[in-house]
Amino acid sequence: MTQPSDKALVPFVSVDNMMRLIHHVGIEPMLRDLADYIEADFKRWELFDKTPRVASHSDVGVIELMPTSDGEAYGFKYVNGHPKNTSEGLQTVTAFGLLADVYTGYPVLLTEMTILTALRTAATSAMVAKHLAPKDARTMAMIGNGAQSEFQTLAMKAICGIEAVRLFDIDRAASEKCARNLAGLGVDVTLCQTPEQAIEGAQILTTCTADKQCATILTDNMVGSGVHINAIGGDCPGKTELAPGILSRSDVFVEYPPQTRIEGEIQQMPEDFPVTELWEVILGRKPGRTSARQITLFDSVGFAIEDFSALRYMRDRIKGTTFFEDLDMLADPDDPRDLFGMLLRAQP
Amino acid sequence: MTQPSDKALVPFVSVDNMMRLIHHVGIEPMLRDLADYIEADFKRWELFDKTPRVASHSDVGVIELMPTSDGEAYGFKYVNGHPKNTSEGLQTVTAFGLLADVYTGYPVLLTEMTILTALRTAATSAMVAKHLAPKDARTMAMIGNGAQSEFQTLAMKAICGIEAVRLFDIDRAASEKCARNLAGLGVDVTLCQTPEQAIEGAQILTTCTADKQCATILTDNMVGSGVHINAIGGDCPGKTELAPGILSRSDVFVEYPPQTRIEGEIQQMPEDFPVTELWEVILGRKPGRTSARQITLFDSVGFAIEDFSALRYMRDRIKGTTFFEDLDMLADPDDPRDLFGMLLRAQP
Repeated sequence: MTQPSDKALVPFVSVDNMMRLIHHVGIEPMLRDLADYIEADFKRWELFDKTPRVASHSDVGVIELMPTSDGEAYGFKYVNGHPKNTSEGLQTVTAFGLLADVYTGYPVLLTEMTILTALRTAATSAMVAKHLAPKDARTMAMIGNGAQSEFQTLAMKAICGIEAVRLFDIDRAASEKCARNLAGLGVDVTLCQTPEQAIEGAQILTTCTADKQCATILTDNMVGSGVHINAIGGDCPGKTELAPGILSRSDVFVEYPPQTRIEGEIQQMPEDFPVTELWEVILGRKPGRTSARQITLFDSVGFAIEDFSALRYMRDRIKGTTFFEDLDMLADPDDPRDLFGMLLRAQP
Repeated sequence: MTQPSDKALVPFVSVDNMMRLIHHVGIEPMLRDLADYIEADFKRWELFDKTPRVASHSDVGVIELMPTSDGEAYGFKYVNGHPKNTSEGLQTVTAFGLLADVYTGYPVLLTEMTILTALRTAATSAMVAKHLAPKDARTMAMIGNGAQSEFQTLAMKAICGIEAVRLFDIDRAASEKCARNLAGLGVDVTLCQTPEQAIEGAQILTTCTADKQCATILTDNMVGSGVHINAIGGDCPGKTELAPGILSRSDVFVEYPPQTRIEGEIQQMPEDFPVTELWEVILGRKPGRTSARQITLFDSVGFAIEDFSALRYMRDRIKGTTFFEDLDMLADPDDPRDLFGMLLRAQP
């Protein structure tokens, strides 16, 4: 075989290497590092090329490409969403991502992003809660105990100092799975019979359910003053989790209004419903939490810049490690005009 | 390490395996097979999801994602365009592509596409020329002798019966490189001093130059009646190769008018300049060549469906072969809700 030049080689992080890296770094330190990268990119929000995601819909799901660029690096994530997959033993969401050098257009990293997305989503939630939740928050209600629940819990522990989590899911087995996975990880876990029981005494309410329909996971009368709501599950058109009354009583914070108005909880509200962009809070330009009785609400839908931050982190973190392999992905003839000659010389 | 399930594995065709496959199949047979796949997809043009390409521009180049779907499979190509790369010893264009199953959202193929794009571009040109060029065409003028020139020549030989090619490039070394590469491949090669000399006696005129500016590779008085012009190089805003007078005298055929009006030769013409969509010619709904004196012109810009056809071909062709490796790219826990448990169990 011909030897590809090193420019032709793209570092690739497999699922197995991603898991090895996470255990090498530690789950909580990695969540903290990711939150730092994400926060740094929120602080330079304005310079990003914010293309809307490009979606291809079918009867059973959606495949999306989420590109963005900071002018030096370009990243995109491929992600599918197929709610019916779970019943067939497949993931609802799988993802991979790529980072490239804007100056040459050459890819510099390819990585699995199913696990990385779970980490970046949790890290984003916790980074936002650090800015918006009551400072003395020690208990989180976790409503919806699917694939994201353990990551959310550990991120809130690592970044916001959460000590206890109260679990509720309409499927008791999901709560039991979550409790089992969290055992021994330093969080006090309580299984609850109802959503009302789960939110008792919690300062942070995280909702992360998977139904693709307008559901009401939290009703208006369930939510008291002074809490921070971290609403993860409403993330596509037609999918919401919160009663409109809660939104009316809350100060709502979003990643990117044009996307959140279509995909988030606020799709239930009028088009001019007031929201605050998180990057402005993080930069100190807009107020976040201003009183102990205020309800703050992060209407999370997941934005391309968070994936970009995660890709940046991975590029930096794997340097000099063994947590990747080189993929011979780019044809790179010695003379750029001589692609055909390279092919000819490869003849066995 | 943990063993990924087979659903988590994505067949990957490296540059080396692509070259091995091409030599295994044979360059000309592979060009013919690709042309058949592309023609088949042009015949079902209407059912494709024709998203415009998503471009991220910088001062020095562009990075694009080109997605499409036929409802069963979804494909996209990542491709960059950096004209200044050549002077730095890098490829102007590099590419890779992915095919996924629409029903599950799971990727089913990842492949290098720098070489594959060269093949599919040439196969498209020749498939179109088969429909539009004079049936007795035996000589092609090849103006611009860069990376695409040998592929164009061999595709025209394999699919249209071209026996002779007349080469011209402003850089004599490029023509010499092309002639050297084509030696012994069954085409009669003539090096020419001027474009005028190159088009003498040629029934097919292929232009494929790389300048990103409005250039005039063919002037109006150079082009006589009865020829087919295969204009490859004008493929982005501000980049054209033909004098407007040629367009006025020709019947112009295009892949996808909304894209060609921005990127193709016809960007020089009024917005209502008449064009014929190729898929309608291939389906027999619209006339192609109607007289021996007519000038037919394929204003080629390259469309996502051609990449999709190439990805489909690769998926089918590598089955049961050794021309790929399996990438552990998708996290696939036994219980889809238990992503965290899979991570925990991977702890060393």
